[in-house]
Amino acid sequence: MKIVQRFAEVRASTAGRLGLVPTMGFLHEGHLALVDAARRDCDTVVMSLFVNPLQFDETRDLSRYPRDLDRDAELAEGRGVDVLFAPELDEMYPQEPLTRVTVSGTTDEMEGAHRPGHFDGVATVVAKLFVGIRADRAYFGRKDAQQLATVTRMAADLSIPIEVVPVSIVREQDGLALSSRNVFLSLDERRRALGISTGLMAAADAAEGGERDGLQLESIVRARLDGVLIDYVALAGALSARRVDNLEEDAVLAVAARVGETRLIDNVFLTVRGDTIVADRGTRLDEPSILYAAHRD
Amino acid sequence: MKIVQRFAEVRASTAGRLGLVPTMGFLHEGHLALVDAARRDCDTVVMSLFVNPLQFDETRDLSRYPRDLDRDAELAEGRGVDVLFAPELDEMYPQEPLTRVTVSGTTDEMEGAHRPGHFDGVATVVAKLFVGIRADRAYFGRKDAQQLATVTRMAADLSIPIEVVPVSIVREQDGLALSSRNVFLSLDERRRALGISTGLMAAADAAEGGERDGLQLESIVRARLDGVLIDYVALAGALSARRVDNLEEDAVLAVAARVGETRLIDNVFLTVRGDTIVADRGTRLDEPSILYAAHRD
Repeated sequence: MKIVQRFAEVRASTAGRLGLVPTMGFLHEGHLALVDAARRDCDTVVMSLFVNPLQFDETRDLSRYPRDLDRDAELAEGRGVDVLFAPELDEMYPQEPLTRVTVSGTTDEMEGAHRPGHFDGVATVVAKLFVGIRADRAYFGRKDAQQLATVTRMAADLSIPIEVVPVSIVREQDGLALSSRNVFLSLDERRRALGISTGLMAAADAAEGGERDGLQLESIVRARLDGVLIDYVALAGALSARRVDNLEEDAVLAVAARVGETRLIDNVFLTVRGDTIVADRGTRLDEPSILYAAHRD
Repeated sequence: MKIVQRFAEVRASTAGRLGLVPTMGFLHEGHLALVDAARRDCDTVVMSLFVNPLQFDETRDLSRYPRDLDRDAELAEGRGVDVLFAPELDEMYPQEPLTRVTVSGTTDEMEGAHRPGHFDGVATVVAKLFVGIRADRAYFGRKDAQQLATVTRMAADLSIPIEVVPVSIVREQDGLALSSRNVFLSLDERRRALGISTGLMAAADAAEGGERDGLQLESIVRARLDGVLIDYVALAGALSARRVDNLEEDAVLAVAARVGETRLIDNVFLTVRGDTIVADRGTRLDEPSILYAAHRD
């Protein structure tokens, strides 16, 4: 695996169909599932690793965001990444960035309503990665469902010749969606956080059983949330990322909540196939994740 | 020369170093000088031809913008264009465009102050052309000096692997800068419009003679403007597109004025080489331009 810091080096290091896995590092099995998907589809797999200041709306969240390049490089190489692109700030922002990529509509609600400026930062840096690397496909986890909707729309709107490929959420054995931020959870917070995935699984069952009413589905989730501060529980169009009253098109049932000082998000994708609903509940690890295991040792 | 309507067809039709000449059609020698520059540098020359609704702040300006695809195709082929990309609206905007590329700073003054939303439309469509075509170089006339500064900054900020190449203004024998909009000028308006280039040439002489004061240079231009409605006369940084008091860095002395119903812009680039100023006065045709001749016949 090559580790490079310049866009031009990435372009010079790749051949054939190029798959990009954009990350902010501190890898877990969620990221590695993106690598697996890219590895299956592509000739060259590039992972980018950059903690993008532009998308952090809270300075504290940026400064405490976990980082460990050596560990990330080892994990990426072990999983088959060909090129690890780990740019310094001066490659990504060599001068004051005057240009912003903004996506309206998909960014108005949910995370967009709670994190001002966040999606401008995401859309801008992801556009840079897409076009600077000239990737053919890019792999995004479904956990950041609104980010997925936003970057998919951005790529189409800007005529970027790339396919955005969604990948299922990876969960701990108990259901907790993997997140680099999980390392901040105390054992008690971890216990309380479980209500999020438990609630979503119950709602997924209800949806597959025929429940299509948004408020009903949301209330099934809310009933399981205890000891957390809810930012939102929302049934939203999968493409529009806008709240819908009923499950009539592909949708995401999404939660954001604060557990202690840590803000967590999670969701289930609900695909509508005629009269049938199919929920993507994600995949569960059969042992503790590398992050969680390391944190608990 | 191939004429294609899809981005994917452009990408499939090109090889080697790819030069892009973005236009809104109704070609004149100014556009053809861009083709000449691309032809010198590149293996494949693509001209895009699209009248972009997103960048028109006035509906009337959009609806009366001159169009003639057959004539344009003949001129482009005669000058050595390999691929003419003439997309329909549904290729450029297949769905409601929710994504905007905005550049701050370079778009605040001059045209930006007079044409709200114009540069968002320009930056967005130019970003699409740059990334959808995957061009290596793009050629822009210096006549739209602020556009040149804005797309150059946009490409750098978004890490687009493209070089933006500026090309000198082409002028009629009498000095009038070529513009597709010149066909709207009556003979009397044409006479009055000449004050713009006459004033700029006088100011270029003064600058090369040592005058570095912005207000002085601007007043030399203003003294030649008669029978036109001035939007601005401004000495601005060539990269920043912001007004400067003195000629201490590369700058553009720019004019926008309305002559009757037609809004014209023009400028001279002033390059600072130590104690020496070098003005780019553009190149003059030695016979009436194809546009002007056709219009006057």
